[in-house]
Amino acid sequence: MDYQNVIGQVMSAAAPHIGEGAVADYIPGLAAVDPKQFGIAVATAEGQVYGDGDVGVPFAIESISKVFALALVLSRKGTVIWDRVRREPSGMPFNDLIELELERGIPRNPYINPGAIVVADQLLFDTGDAVAALRDLFRAETGNRALDVDSVIAESELRSGERNRAIGYLMSSFGNMRNPVELALDHYFRQCSFDITCTELAKAGLLVARHGLRADGSRLLERADARHLTALMTTCGTYDAAGEFAYRVGLPCKSGVGGAILAVVPDRCSIAVWGPGLDPKGNSVTGGVALEAFARATGFSVF
Amino acid sequence: MDYQNVIGQVMSAAAPHIGEGAVADYIPGLAAVDPKQFGIAVATAEGQVYGDGDVGVPFAIESISKVFALALVLSRKGTVIWDRVRREPSGMPFNDLIELELERGIPRNPYINPGAIVVADQLLFDTGDAVAALRDLFRAETGNRALDVDSVIAESELRSGERNRAIGYLMSSFGNMRNPVELALDHYFRQCSFDITCTELAKAGLLVARHGLRADGSRLLERADARHLTALMTTCGTYDAAGEFAYRVGLPCKSGVGGAILAVVPDRCSIAVWGPGLDPKGNSVTGGVALEAFARATGFSVF
Amino acid sequence: MDYQNVIGQVMSAAAPHIGEGAVADYIPGLAAVDPKQFGIAVATAEGQVYGDGDVGVPFAIESISKVFALALVLSRKGTVIWDRVRREPSGMPFNDLIELELERGIPRNPYINPGAIVVADQLLFDTGDAVAALRDLFRAETGNRALDVDSVIAESELRSGERNRAIGYLMSSFGNMRNPVELALDHYFRQCSFDITCTELAKAGLLVARHGLRADGSRLLERADARHLTALMTTCGTYDAAGEFAYRVGLPCKSGVGGAILAVVPDRCSIAVWGPGLDPKGNSVTGGVALEAFARATGFSVF
Amino acid sequence: MDYQNVIGQVMSAAAPHIGEGAVADYIPGLAAVDPKQFGIAVATAEGQVYGDGDVGVPFAIESISKVFALALVLSRKGTVIWDRVRREPSGMPFNDLIELELERGIPRNPYINPGAIVVADQLLFDTGDAVAALRDLFRAETGNRALDVDSVIAESELRSGERNRAIGYLMSSFGNMRNPVELALDHYFRQCSFDITCTELAKAGLLVARHGLRADGSRLLERADARHLTALMTTCGTYDAAGEFAYRVGLPCKSGVGGAILAVVPDRCSIAVWGPGLDPKGNSVTGGVALEAFARATGFSVF
Repeated sequence: MDYQNVIGQVMSAAAPHIGEGAVADYIPGLAAVDPKQFGIAVATAEGQVYGDGDVGVPFAIESISKVFALALVLSRKGTVIWDRVRREPSGMPFNDLIELELERGIPRNPYINPGAIVVADQLLFDTGDAVAALRDLFRAETGNRALDVDSVIAESELRSGERNRAIGYLMSSFGNMRNPVELALDHYFRQCSFDITCTELAKAGLLVARHGLRADGSRLLERADARHLTALMTTCGTYDAAGEFAYRVGLPCKSGVGGAILAVVPDRCSIAVWGPGLDPKGNSVTGGVALEAFARATGFSVF
Repeated sequence: MDYQNVIGQVMSAAAPHIGEGAVADYIPGLAAVDPKQFGIAVATAEGQVYGDGDVGVPFAIESISKVFALALVLSRKGTVIWDRVRREPSGMPFNDLIELELERGIPRNPYINPGAIVVADQLLFDTGDAVAALRDLFRAETGNRALDVDSVIAESELRSGERNRAIGYLMSSFGNMRNPVELALDHYFRQCSFDITCTELAKAGLLVARHGLRADGSRLLERADARHLTALMTTCGTYDAAGEFAYRVGLPCKSGVGGAILAVVPDRCSIAVWGPGLDPKGNSVTGGVALEAFARATGFSVF
Repeated sequence: MDYQNVIGQVMSAAAPHIGEGAVADYIPGLAAVDPKQFGIAVATAEGQVYGDGDVGVPFAIESISKVFALALVLSRKGTVIWDRVRREPSGMPFNDLIELELERGIPRNPYINPGAIVVADQLLFDTGDAVAALRDLFRAETGNRALDVDSVIAESELRSGERNRAIGYLMSSFGNMRNPVELALDHYFRQCSFDITCTELAKAGLLVARHGLRADGSRLLERADARHLTALMTTCGTYDAAGEFAYRVGLPCKSGVGGAILAVVPDRCSIAVWGPGLDPKGNSVTGGVALEAFARATGFSVF
Repeated sequence: MDYQNVIGQVMSAAAPHIGEGAVADYIPGLAAVDPKQFGIAVATAEGQVYGDGDVGVPFAIESISKVFALALVLSRKGTVIWDRVRREPSGMPFNDLIELELERGIPRNPYINPGAIVVADQLLFDTGDAVAALRDLFRAETGNRALDVDSVIAESELRSGERNRAIGYLMSSFGNMRNPVELALDHYFRQCSFDITCTELAKAGLLVARHGLRADGSRLLERADARHLTALMTTCGTYDAAGEFAYRVGLPCKSGVGGAILAVVPDRCSIAVWGPGLDPKGNSVTGGVALEAFARATGFSVF
């Protein structure tokens, strides 16, 4: 596959849409991002990295961190977590309490906010420091020893997180928290605030594309467990648009409100796209266009 | 009306049921209450007080405090509060988040937990100290200058209040809190923890029965505003059993999980009954039986 | 009480609002009604009838029929019906399926559509002809031997009743229908289509105000059972505005989308008001204003 | 791939589970099926068919028909249907009205009952006879010119379909039905009642596996549109267990309460398994075990 040529086609497809959509504005740190940026990076299973556009500009990883936190939890005690969170799609918007209440504090899956808070809580419980565990993982997979949490973003997330607090306390009232709610949320908000670039995210994504193999060749989790990561990306990786993404892109994807989307072609490559403008469902406009172009140009599809 | 004779009939009706039901057990302070207690007190608009049974034993006022907190808020800025809480019955159990989420953080009425938290928050905002305002009111109306919060109960409520925290943060996420959630909840939990006796509660209830007239003859709130207190007691004063109470008792009632129920006969009298054993809906078993017997013996009914 | 003088005050209060609100338009028969009509009639327990305005113009009784259907069912097998419908307020709009689904096909109360369909189904099951039973009752209580269903309205209701069909089949799927759904709905829609005037409705309402006593002095139902009618009117007689009506009017009320509202002062009188323009919650605008003025002028209130 | 060997492994894996689970019992025709049957058939893109067990026993196709009805609708007017039904996963059980009500009569996807009723309604609207259109398709793809609806099953479905009627009328009340509800349901119930064998279902499934190519080499629908069929099978093909199937099997699947599951390996083969015993979520127990064994033996997975 001539990835550089593919990337050229993606850039052409994305170009007319740069600047479209609305930057997330619930915290100042995200609202201040220049919307006219766009980047795409592809990391292959064989070790090459391709890219174009703003591939070196760091952004907040936000919900894409949920994939890596789940990988870490599964690598330790895979089965325990499935008592605390299910792995089914959610019919409700990504931060909805109705479903959580009807289902007695057990979130639908690890990629909606309630489920991700449970995963962060479990990772904190298992390791004593969820953020440190993720920091170690990101640094090792990307090779960037300075990769870290953006403390300004983290602080803002913490201050504006009333709804996530409601989620945490509701789960706590059903006995589904292992740490004090505020402590777990502190780790959760910092987990979402890692600064990462497209190139780095594509590299880290290889962990998923290669079913649990780390950059150093060691295995983080069993291939069978790693399949959870991609299966859940397909069914619930893009909020309330998972079905639309399955059709448009046909690859497992996970998006974040920072404007990035991570997609993987199992056993082949990992793709990171970034454009800060979001559509009404919270997915990057240019990111979606770019991944659609990528799938068309390569013919890659899991369906 | 020969109230002493009526009370005799009530005692006979309640006696076989003493000890029935389950004492609230979500906090140690309530779980430790001896279930074999029962008392009834009646305070008349003319100033007499009648009673029998354990009328001098203090208990936690719990949700009955919601009536008095609302009275205080209405006495200050009656109309403001109706932008923050509605006055319709709730179709959901008293601490349900589903309805609150569907209705964008505006509680159905001031007597379900979300609404009572809004009222406590408003009272705190208006006065600077919601608990002090209620303490002053209770002391003045009951004549007991030592009446106060049971700090052990308050502390337990605070520690076990995860679900109320979820409610508070959910309302905060919709912009419906005026104070920090934890501060408002601290006042709310202490408000629920006032220690009061049957006799005292009946005296305080005259404020409601007399449509806003205080014990000293001054007026706390306008007669028209006071009607809210009784109308809401009728439609939503006994959790999910308001319809059943309307039929069985036929008087405006407000119950609390401490085992007390306050009922009023407008312009005539206020009745406080107390028996710690609760039915599955959270209302005192003996309290319900007693009020039913009271209504039958007196013929009093608003219907 | 000088009712004629009271009615004069009511007419003055209502006059500025005549024509306000929107006529129900889901069926042609209701949409064609002239909105600039208004009438009020008062029937006293002693047998006098007072009135002014369009008291002799027939209108569709609609949901007010629910009170009388319930009275007939209670008069036969009072307790059976409470296994099929509860008597608690509903937190949802009057025709909502969500609550019905969550509560497994058992409606909240007999005055929301699902509950009224259950009552009609039971009345049909008990009598073989629910409409005939109601026709006999209305004729006897009003003295109008020609009072009958408006077949054009009934036919329109039947044709436009998709949502009520959904309700009926949902209850049927939970085993809560005794007759074929279409048959029960046919009786229900015709029950809602009785043509009645203000004067007649006030007379019929005495059955409720006098706690089950009929015009001929015989007793239709026990006083205790009759209390259900008024208690339910207070907590759920005016759709999603029961709390507001309790405050504004302070009397048990039942409204219909034909524009009428029936109110009762227990043991004293029955009041029927009619103005076709509805507020957004489905209650007559002039009707609400008129009842508020009536309550103010008489001082009558159950609270 | 040595499919006959793979099938041997599948038979060994399934054998210990034959007879497990509960046969669907809501209609007599399904309840009477002998639970101790099991079959698997594989049809390859190259035209071979492999199988073992009860591959020639006809069973009711039930919900698997939804895939083919959608294919026919997409082949005619692909875009129209997406205004009437979405393509997102559903968080609710497969026949739930709550979600349908909250989302104003627009079903989440074409594989839950409300969505399938919309698709049947559209197919009927487009063709004049939805059942005939499906019959033609099934006969052509399977080569069985006698393949037809089991009229006894269809009749039973029709008689027991109260909940689907509720769904149909609710959608009709929101304006989302093109035919009279009873007529559309008649076609829907008959569509679910086609008698088909494992071998035939595997052959018909090639239409999906080959992205819209028919047995005769003509194209029923565009490859891009055909992707909807598999994407939706992955996200919502197995009721409330889609996430679990994605993990266990890793292939697009669609199950029916008749006990069959259709799975496809895009561009390679179609697999039909059948065992009447269902797990609590409505998916065949042996079918799930068999597909898991198939995926393990072949290494096929879309993730």
